[in-house]
Amino acid sequence: MRGAILVLSGPSGSGKSTLIKEMVKDIGPYYFSISTTTREPREGETHGVDYFFVDKEEFKDDIQEELFLEYALVHGNYYGTSLKPVESALAEGKLVIFDIDVQGHESIKNRLPDITTSVFITTPTFEVLKERLSARKTDSEAIINKRLEMAKVEIQRIGEFDFIIVNDVLEESIKEIKAVAHTSKLKKAPASIDAFKTLWQGM
Amino acid sequence: MRGAILVLSGPSGSGKSTLIKEMVKDIGPYYFSISTTTREPREGETHGVDYFFVDKEEFKDDIQEELFLEYALVHGNYYGTSLKPVESALAEGKLVIFDIDVQGHESIKNRLPDITTSVFITTPTFEVLKERLSARKTDSEAIINKRLEMAKVEIQRIGEFDFIIVNDVLEESIKEIKAVAHTSKLKKAPASIDAFKTLWQGM
Repeated sequence: MRGAILVLSGPSGSGKSTLIKEMVKDIGPYYFSISTTTREPREGETHGVDYFFVDKEEFKDDIQEELFLEYALVHGNYYGTSLKPVESALAEGKLVIFDIDVQGHESIKNRLPDITTSVFITTPTFEVLKERLSARKTDSEAIINKRLEMAKVEIQRIGEFDFIIVNDVLEESIKEIKAVAHTSKLKKAPASIDAFKTLWQGM
Repeated sequence: MRGAILVLSGPSGSGKSTLIKEMVKDIGPYYFSISTTTREPREGETHGVDYFFVDKEEFKDDIQEELFLEYALVHGNYYGTSLKPVESALAEGKLVIFDIDVQGHESIKNRLPDITTSVFITTPTFEVLKERLSARKTDSEAIINKRLEMAKVEIQRIGEFDFIIVNDVLEESIKEIKAVAHTSKLKKAPASIDAFKTLWQGM
């Protein structure tokens, strides 16, 4: 059976990473999609783990050859998802997980609507997001403010997602994201529906 | 928070009743929708448990007053779902569960698309359905054949459902239906999305 796609979006500080970490513990075989980018690796980042780092020439060639499921140009750097590893994982029946922004979600949903389930993860309120980002003490105030502004913009598009998880009580949210991951694999591909219908029709 | 609707369809013999029984054990507050009918009660059937039994006059009056979420005329008898108990349960934040045919599913989905999740439950193959119905030894051959014919017709409409559960390994199917029930409560009502967007916009 062909795999399925699960897209997870949500602002930095929403608890998305924690939820993903918990979710993958018992969802069966999955492939966590890694983006390809032309930006320089930062300290501690590893090729093939955090990103696939390539130069602009290679990226542009791949665009020409339609090798991307989606891509975007952000602050002069390209970011994208190569089709090949996604297609392989789907062929192996895996659940392909994306941690991607609302724009990336739109592209994937348009391209593979029948097998894609999407979830937007958010804090209950804007204040809680602000508190959580400040409490982390890892980011400068400038970065926190940029993240808050981005969150406000992204929230305006939550209506495009299949599900919304309001991450208030962590234990509840973990149950919710696991349930969504489980059901995303029950999404029916049109080909298998047609096969099913034909088989029963002939009886 | 407003409740949600979960529609379960599938042929007699698919294991639907067993799955529903297991599902309701841990899904939180729910209301199992009871149909209203003008047919005579059969032996062992109780008003308010199996059906609400009413006469044709009353049923027709209710149709005129638009008191049904959906209704149909089958072999000279009316069957329908009264709006009132469903609305009350939704207002109490409950999950409203329907065990209904494909036609009923269509009506509910058209009427309340934003809060409705639907699942079609089936055996892996037509042969398995045949075996299961025969093994029960409760139905005459004529009834079994009628059920099999109905199943063939219903299967042609599985594409209208959000999810399909192929009930092969019971333990797996139980996990699946529980996951679907859980996620159905995460479906977003447009009103709550708008409220969310407005709140964050103003920050």
